[in-house]
Amino acid sequence: MDTGTAYGLRLGQPLNELAQVGPGTPYGEVLRRYWHPVAKVEDATTRPISLRVLGEELVLFRTRKGKPGLLHPRCIHRGASLFYGGVEDEGIRCCYHGWVFDTEGHCLEQPCEPDLGLHRDRVRQPWYSVEEQYGLLWAYMGPPDKKPVLPRYDTLEDLAPGEQLIVNDQGVGGGGPAVLDFNWLQHWENVMDPFHVPILHARFSGNQFTPEMALIPEVSYEYTPLGVRSIQMRDLGDGRQLRRVTEVIFPNLRVVASPKLSSGQTNMIGWVVPMDDTNFRIFTVARDEDSDFLAKLRSTHEGKPWKELTELEHQRLPGDYEAQKSQGSISLHSEDHLTTTDQGIAMIRRMMAKQHRAVAGGGDPVGVFFDESERLVRIEGGNYFEGAADAPLLAEAVDD
Amino acid sequence: MDTGTAYGLRLGQPLNELAQVGPGTPYGEVLRRYWHPVAKVEDATTRPISLRVLGEELVLFRTRKGKPGLLHPRCIHRGASLFYGGVEDEGIRCCYHGWVFDTEGHCLEQPCEPDLGLHRDRVRQPWYSVEEQYGLLWAYMGPPDKKPVLPRYDTLEDLAPGEQLIVNDQGVGGGGPAVLDFNWLQHWENVMDPFHVPILHARFSGNQFTPEMALIPEVSYEYTPLGVRSIQMRDLGDGRQLRRVTEVIFPNLRVVASPKLSSGQTNMIGWVVPMDDTNFRIFTVARDEDSDFLAKLRSTHEGKPWKELTELEHQRLPGDYEAQKSQGSISLHSEDHLTTTDQGIAMIRRMMAKQHRAVAGGGDPVGVFFDESERLVRIEGGNYFEGAADAPLLAEAVDD
Amino acid sequence: MDTGTAYGLRLGQPLNELAQVGPGTPYGEVLRRYWHPVAKVEDATTRPISLRVLGEELVLFRTRKGKPGLLHPRCIHRGASLFYGGVEDEGIRCCYHGWVFDTEGHCLEQPCEPDLGLHRDRVRQPWYSVEEQYGLLWAYMGPPDKKPVLPRYDTLEDLAPGEQLIVNDQGVGGGGPAVLDFNWLQHWENVMDPFHVPILHARFSGNQFTPEMALIPEVSYEYTPLGVRSIQMRDLGDGRQLRRVTEVIFPNLRVVASPKLSSGQTNMIGWVVPMDDTNFRIFTVARDEDSDFLAKLRSTHEGKPWKELTELEHQRLPGDYEAQKSQGSISLHSEDHLTTTDQGIAMIRRMMAKQHRAVAGGGDPVGVFFDESERLVRIEGGNYFEGAADAPLLAEAVDD
Repeated sequence: MDTGTAYGLRLGQPLNELAQVGPGTPYGEVLRRYWHPVAKVEDATTRPISLRVLGEELVLFRTRKGKPGLLHPRCIHRGASLFYGGVEDEGIRCCYHGWVFDTEGHCLEQPCEPDLGLHRDRVRQPWYSVEEQYGLLWAYMGPPDKKPVLPRYDTLEDLAPGEQLIVNDQGVGGGGPAVLDFNWLQHWENVMDPFHVPILHARFSGNQFTPEMALIPEVSYEYTPLGVRSIQMRDLGDGRQLRRVTEVIFPNLRVVASPKLSSGQTNMIGWVVPMDDTNFRIFTVARDEDSDFLAKLRSTHEGKPWKELTELEHQRLPGDYEAQKSQGSISLHSEDHLTTTDQGIAMIRRMMAKQHRAVAGGGDPVGVFFDESERLVRIEGGNYFEGAADAPLLAEAVDD
Repeated sequence: MDTGTAYGLRLGQPLNELAQVGPGTPYGEVLRRYWHPVAKVEDATTRPISLRVLGEELVLFRTRKGKPGLLHPRCIHRGASLFYGGVEDEGIRCCYHGWVFDTEGHCLEQPCEPDLGLHRDRVRQPWYSVEEQYGLLWAYMGPPDKKPVLPRYDTLEDLAPGEQLIVNDQGVGGGGPAVLDFNWLQHWENVMDPFHVPILHARFSGNQFTPEMALIPEVSYEYTPLGVRSIQMRDLGDGRQLRRVTEVIFPNLRVVASPKLSSGQTNMIGWVVPMDDTNFRIFTVARDEDSDFLAKLRSTHEGKPWKELTELEHQRLPGDYEAQKSQGSISLHSEDHLTTTDQGIAMIRRMMAKQHRAVAGGGDPVGVFFDESERLVRIEGGNYFEGAADAPLLAEAVDD
Repeated sequence: MDTGTAYGLRLGQPLNELAQVGPGTPYGEVLRRYWHPVAKVEDATTRPISLRVLGEELVLFRTRKGKPGLLHPRCIHRGASLFYGGVEDEGIRCCYHGWVFDTEGHCLEQPCEPDLGLHRDRVRQPWYSVEEQYGLLWAYMGPPDKKPVLPRYDTLEDLAPGEQLIVNDQGVGGGGPAVLDFNWLQHWENVMDPFHVPILHARFSGNQFTPEMALIPEVSYEYTPLGVRSIQMRDLGDGRQLRRVTEVIFPNLRVVASPKLSSGQTNMIGWVVPMDDTNFRIFTVARDEDSDFLAKLRSTHEGKPWKELTELEHQRLPGDYEAQKSQGSISLHSEDHLTTTDQGIAMIRRMMAKQHRAVAGGGDPVGVFFDESERLVRIEGGNYFEGAADAPLLAEAVDD
């Protein structure tokens, strides 16, 4: 008699307490304790744009005086969207009846009311704090009394002459479109999964990686104060060892080393920002002399950019996007069979669960600081060559 | 610490008892006590068409003898749609097994049954009463014992020589497409909201209105026997006062004065007919010498018709459609902050609630008459000039 | 007062226990006791394809050694779809981490694990049995201890010289697209509904049928050991009688006689295979000398193939597809008014209900055999001329 057939198969469940991002969800509340990049600095203008972040609809604009504003889109008066609002010196005016709100939601004017609104100070348009840093706009969407300082990252500080910061919101590292249409956690977990590299990127995706990256590495994992780290050792066969360090930093930062193999710390990091439970974006900041550095980094499949692949080529040359999206809109994590090589995945999940228990219990999650003196985050991820140090460098492509 | 942020915001609820239109819903049952225009007279032909009215699917046709029929589309025999039926002298024949139904749903023939159906009088295709008036087909979809007389309206009676009735079902007054894809109440309430005019139509939509309409009017509101009325006073600065009267008449009639400023009663009225909870149409009837009168009335945005606007222009020059649709598929009315200028909105809602309580209690809603002698409705809406009567008229555009 | 109006109409319910096909549904479990064609033999290649059958997602491929495999698509390791897998000699390799599964789901390799996976025999990719016959791939998706022998059909056996088997999966007999987008039962029941032929196909669809088929037949129905049969008698007016026999064989086989009127048993049969509750395919196998036999059989509407009809022509010349799809995605069977001419429908439904009660009670449904000696099914459907036997044959089109 046949055994192991699909008859009677019961489909599993997602780890919703880790995957979901909306208000009130366990990890959604963890995410809301940190600052998140929501747009590039230049996206905030006097023309409002709609954003979806952590399951919430928002409108972003910049007053004529230059201050960015991030507001709940539904005008508190009668509900027209501030997407259609007119931006003025101090705020935005609703198109329907003209109420004006500043970037902190104060109602400055109700033009059809007597005296422009005798009681306008009694209402408030819901808003979020926004700060600018590294060419990005950062929002804090959590409880006001828990607002931490906005972190800085050592790898993005102290630029050398000729270097610049390069900002990208087009999904660098995701191997697919700018808006990635599946649960963010499938992507973030993938950062701590070094074993897919020699299989997916070397055997399946075409010439994405150098021969060295096709070697199955020796991997060790460790918890760090801010997340999880994997150390991948590859014997390069010329007396050298490549020690590649990859990190995830809570709640959603990816630290994947530069492909240029300049020995040392990575020159770029990226934030995996959920739009909702089944869509996310990646904001990446790099330092380099070439302003096209990040655009050039995008993987190709047998030389073709992802956007130009035919359906057959997507199937024949799958990359990160195809693999991760095919796990489902939200993966049924309970069906996973984790093995020794999935230790990094297991560690992320355990550490995530710990954070949401901490938050639910009234505490703070890791990496949240309230003192300016603690705001600098040290990045360890990078490519470190050990052994015959003066051997020529290899060409290597990023894990995209 | 930040106050008034969007963290912890709870989204509100629609006023479903006023907004919903399906069978058995509170206001759906109010609507079902009146006749509703469902199509233009010429839309009923020997080629059946599908209609959706008050959440119900229907098929409209006209027998070869000229009688319009409005039937439930699912053939009571085995369920094929009468949309595919063949129209005959007395009724419509289902394409599947040939049962024939007249316009009152009687089964005239079951061709494959012995004697064309010995028991065909035991079945009935569900149907609705239809009448023709003012170039429109009117349906009564309510309890048969509550069927009122079909009203007439004084402003559409007694045409002068050269005048004609002009019928439009393309959303005149909605400022958008022919089928408006949001809840009908957002549009109907807007009729009793004179303060959006100087803001939306003067400051935002471009050159839609004359300078006089950009003045914030003095407004008073009053209940009428059939609905709610607003009286908007504008001092024209030349010794004259413009008294503009706008009305809603239950359950869904809009009376918005003509833009031609010929002093006096409006020459057009419109019915806001819900297709379902999130789509509606507007049927408008006008009297004029120019058969293009209603088509010419459509607002433009800096000279462009709505259909030709780019996405950016929709955002930069929002009109009624953009404002009302952006309130949501069904607005979350409980989030509204009504003020003194929203008195008209509040009065409509109160009067609507009163009607559904009346119907639930076994009574009749306002404006339902069973005697022919009461069928004539008097329309008060219009533009009335007071003061120096012989000054030249102004050009003015309609609230569209 | 009006009677019989649609006011207060309550919509009915589908016969879900007969119509639904998913795991655990009453008739879904009946269907799972039989073999089903799921693809043409040539569709299984080293390029995997996605299939949906009985509400289940599956991946079909053929190993480099030639064995077809039908697997649950979600890799049991970490959930990437085997649609992106690479086919090897013995099985398929997941693109993400390289696990290899054979056609019975055994894990042959876990390349990143020590020793290629010390415990790889503890996991199993869910799979289904596949067999090849008549140019089709057949799957058994039921309980392993109930797996019957794969039936053969006498009408497809013992081909004459020059004859060949012709296979079609493009919806022959459905009168519409290759994937029919409504509940499969609406189509299968239609096979036992001979009275729609003179109405739909003669009066509505245009010249689909010969004048003889436009005659309303004398019909008798009978249960057979394997299903239901109708015998349709038509007096051809030249001394001959046409006896046309149509059958349904459980659980989903349609036996509709050849249009060529070669007297005798039909030369083709078709399986109505649900993809899910609202989509199905038809697999047809015929024997003929002309390899285009089935393609040529497709009905036309006034000479036009279905795919070329305009919307207006679909309405004016409805065929099986229009009639059956218009019954709804899943027909509200409880609204049907079955009459004497619907006896065949009633008999199918009763026999279906009997089967799902049998299965729920631990028994076997009809036509399931476990002994090779019982596997041959005799087909009775066909066109039988009685009376003046040597009169010239008529041209007749198939019920498509």
